[in-house]
Amino acid sequence: MTRTLLILDPDAQRYARRVAEAGVAGLRVLQSSDAGALPDGFHAAEIVLGPPQWIAPVLPCLRSLRWVQSTWAGVEPLLQPTGRRDYLLSGVKGIFGSQMAEYVLCYMLMHQQRALQRLDAQRARRWDKITSEPLADREVVILGTGSIGREIARRCVQCGMRTCGVNRGGENPGPFSRVMPASTLVEAASMADFLVMALPGTTATRHLVDRRVIAALPTHAVLINVGRGNTLDTRALAAALAAGRLGGAVLDVLEQEPPAPDDPLWQTPGLLITAHVSAVSHVQEIAPLFLDNLRRYLSGDRPLHLVDFQRGY
Amino acid sequence: MTRTLLILDPDAQRYARRVAEAGVAGLRVLQSSDAGALPDGFHAAEIVLGPPQWIAPVLPCLRSLRWVQSTWAGVEPLLQPTGRRDYLLSGVKGIFGSQMAEYVLCYMLMHQQRALQRLDAQRARRWDKITSEPLADREVVILGTGSIGREIARRCVQCGMRTCGVNRGGENPGPFSRVMPASTLVEAASMADFLVMALPGTTATRHLVDRRVIAALPTHAVLINVGRGNTLDTRALAAALAAGRLGGAVLDVLEQEPPAPDDPLWQTPGLLITAHVSAVSHVQEIAPLFLDNLRRYLSGDRPLHLVDFQRGY
Repeated sequence: MTRTLLILDPDAQRYARRVAEAGVAGLRVLQSSDAGALPDGFHAAEIVLGPPQWIAPVLPCLRSLRWVQSTWAGVEPLLQPTGRRDYLLSGVKGIFGSQMAEYVLCYMLMHQQRALQRLDAQRARRWDKITSEPLADREVVILGTGSIGREIARRCVQCGMRTCGVNRGGENPGPFSRVMPASTLVEAASMADFLVMALPGTTATRHLVDRRVIAALPTHAVLINVGRGNTLDTRALAAALAAGRLGGAVLDVLEQEPPAPDDPLWQTPGLLITAHVSAVSHVQEIAPLFLDNLRRYLSGDRPLHLVDFQRGY
Repeated sequence: MTRTLLILDPDAQRYARRVAEAGVAGLRVLQSSDAGALPDGFHAAEIVLGPPQWIAPVLPCLRSLRWVQSTWAGVEPLLQPTGRRDYLLSGVKGIFGSQMAEYVLCYMLMHQQRALQRLDAQRARRWDKITSEPLADREVVILGTGSIGREIARRCVQCGMRTCGVNRGGENPGPFSRVMPASTLVEAASMADFLVMALPGTTATRHLVDRRVIAALPTHAVLINVGRGNTLDTRALAAALAAGRLGGAVLDVLEQEPPAPDDPLWQTPGLLITAHVSAVSHVQEIAPLFLDNLRRYLSGDRPLHLVDFQRGY
């Protein structure tokens, strides 16, 4: 029996080459690197590989669909209440954590080193003794204790920081110093030198960090969001920053991406914005994960990293 | 027998309080936090605590001098060929490594994350996907394998980097992946993604990183100097940066500190300058080290971390 794999991804050619090199038997591979140009016969796809926002519009046409492997960490476009749920959806785990951890570490260190103040001093030709504060003994509160949150925690522990995870039930999957349930988020926030958000975008996490949580943060605290933009009340954050009630914030994700050219966020004092780049999919990392899952699937096993449509991750 | 301790340091009062709290018997403590205002009776000092550049001009007046404890890592002002060498000089070890390692890690991560390009994009209200490169598998060549170089290496190893130490003899004191002798510096430089300089300022290290070493660096390499300014041929570095033959450089130390207002270094492309701040002396860190050494000295033992006047560290 020949099965059809549809690769619909900006890197479709490179993924197709990896699949060909793996020599998988009984597989017909269709590919396109253009979301608007579907290959002939795509309707017959049983397996689809690609980013969720490319796959979502195609779903209704796929009569034989049984498994989707996302090439992205976030799968929200496939979780719409009216969308199909009659197939296996597997995500990407254990790959983005390292990238996101270096992103978080970079911006935490820049804050402690006051790197941007030093840059301003250099540009003004001032030899200012702008000293640093160590990361050691600082408390980082990490929202989300999945593979990404845990990898961020691991790197923070290496820097001598105290790590407090926050998740629904309060269980500690390691390596956090301790984990608190989301119901005590305000209390956790009140102890944070850094609040790092690594949450999936679900109905339960929408604006989880709201005005109350932001108000509970110490005035020197820095908030960093690498998860999903809608898990944070961005306007409440901007108001706190503008009022000088926070040490700073770094947002890699926003509720509206990109923000409008006249959005005040671009120039909110103490706010650094990056363009959803804290983790990007590299073929050399995703392909082995997909090929492993493909072997499992073709031999009748369930792929790894399946998404629970109900929970949303 | 009463011995006289002279504390000549910007933080003299705090050091004096720590000594008083330690309840050391038979010790008379004189102190000044002003290098130009020496306390009455200072000539009788047998023990001196303070930064080398404050102590050096006073040395000729100290008839009973037997031991100097530096509060700084660098002791060059006390190593002049014509200076006194008839006393014990102890330095500070194991304290500055952690601060310098975080400094180095910060600027390596900023480079890999392209943090300053992202900042420029934000200021121009551009949602540019400026992605990062990981630290993992990158080669960092560290000049100097003393306590500071080793601590930098330890943190780089945690980030998954390959670490190559360079010292005089080529012995590996750990935790370097490997160590090469200084005679092969050009070869080591040719493999560096990052070249980190953590060298003491001695006659042997003067311009150790010269035009040839800089020319051997890959064009994407980044040079970071946290040791001493005169260990680097700064003009050769500036020329390489201006010609686009290097990925960047970060200098916390310069041959002339501060640089003149019209020094082209302030605006050399790809060059970040900070004002000798990668490690600063904190009383809470130096005081325990001094008190430990004081106990040793008063009981007839030699203080730890003695400087060899001949080697210069």
